[in-house]
Amino acid sequence: MQYPRPLGRLIGELSKLPGIGTKTAQRLAFHILSLTDREAENLADAIQEAKHTMRYCSVCGNLTDQDPCAVCSDQTRDRTTICVVETPQDVMAMERVREYKGLYHVLNGVISPMEGIGPEDINLRQLILRLQQHPEVTEVILATNPNIEGEATAMYIARLLKPSGIKVTRLAHGLPVGGDLEYADEVTLLKAMEGRTAL
Amino acid sequence: MQYPRPLGRLIGELSKLPGIGTKTAQRLAFHILSLTDREAENLADAIQEAKHTMRYCSVCGNLTDQDPCAVCSDQTRDRTTICVVETPQDVMAMERVREYKGLYHVLNGVISPMEGIGPEDINLRQLILRLQQHPEVTEVILATNPNIEGEATAMYIARLLKPSGIKVTRLAHGLPVGGDLEYADEVTLLKAMEGRTAL
Repeated sequence: MQYPRPLGRLIGELSKLPGIGTKTAQRLAFHILSLTDREAENLADAIQEAKHTMRYCSVCGNLTDQDPCAVCSDQTRDRTTICVVETPQDVMAMERVREYKGLYHVLNGVISPMEGIGPEDINLRQLILRLQQHPEVTEVILATNPNIEGEATAMYIARLLKPSGIKVTRLAHGLPVGGDLEYADEVTLLKAMEGRTAL
Repeated sequence: MQYPRPLGRLIGELSKLPGIGTKTAQRLAFHILSLTDREAENLADAIQEAKHTMRYCSVCGNLTDQDPCAVCSDQTRDRTTICVVETPQDVMAMERVREYKGLYHVLNGVISPMEGIGPEDINLRQLILRLQQHPEVTEVILATNPNIEGEATAMYIARLLKPSGIKVTRLAHGLPVGGDLEYADEVTLLKAMEGRTAL
């Protein structure tokens, strides 16, 4: 006995989502059937609306429902600093710190020769154009992830920007706060040693 | 900084689903934005279609897209036996065994005084009517869950059907196959002892 077709289809669509296996998809599908018509309508409509209205900011590449995005059009932000991140999620992570008040540039990817992703496949040309158009920018903070691809991308961008004379910085490596020296990996510990500061 | 409204709305709707917290909802929402228009459309449409076309079988109470459902209208099934379960998921679990060839009756709930759910709140009256209309039914198998509410519901139905003279049976309690005697709880072990069979 198979699931009735519409139910089977819903389970199939849900199980395509990341981290959702068949069992979870079944549970979600039965839950959706138990919703009121209005609630189910809301869920389906939220998917459609987000998909139709969200796009990339033409200035910084962040996901937004208005162009330019809220950060780019916020005149109170410091326009001399641009923080380069890999994804829109990283922008949200930086914003949660409530410390950084500059602008962002979202690469929407990372250079990865293993996966055949080169500099021209990420939102990098737009960064160069942006820096040319905005000579007021004095610092570019490279906040790509601290892994192989993120480091390589940061190195690539740093070399690319060198001739322009703009100050290029990278987020510090070191021990995570609340972490344990004993369990820190060697590379992190080495970076923490290298980056030690005077007290 | 908040999420743009359509994205925030999608995250909100997704995090209403069972087992989906805010973090997972964010991950799913960003994934949905990365889908093609067609894929996102498919997901939204599957939700709407399932919600609009799936209903309860007027005979057995199972979820179906046709009325009567596939099992009730399957003339090859044994019409003398009805297996009473709590949910449509339980029907699927029974069907996976590929052994039972009779009909089902789905209560879509379970008697639970703690939650204020009485016999009239579940699909029980319909079972009585069904048994009156179909004197060919000779056995009712009570396959409610082996927990307090399931047992109480089974007891209630068994007492209700007693005057009719129809044979009423209950799924066996005992050790799960592949289980370990050492880790079995006392009640399960007691039931396994009580239900021991001659070899």
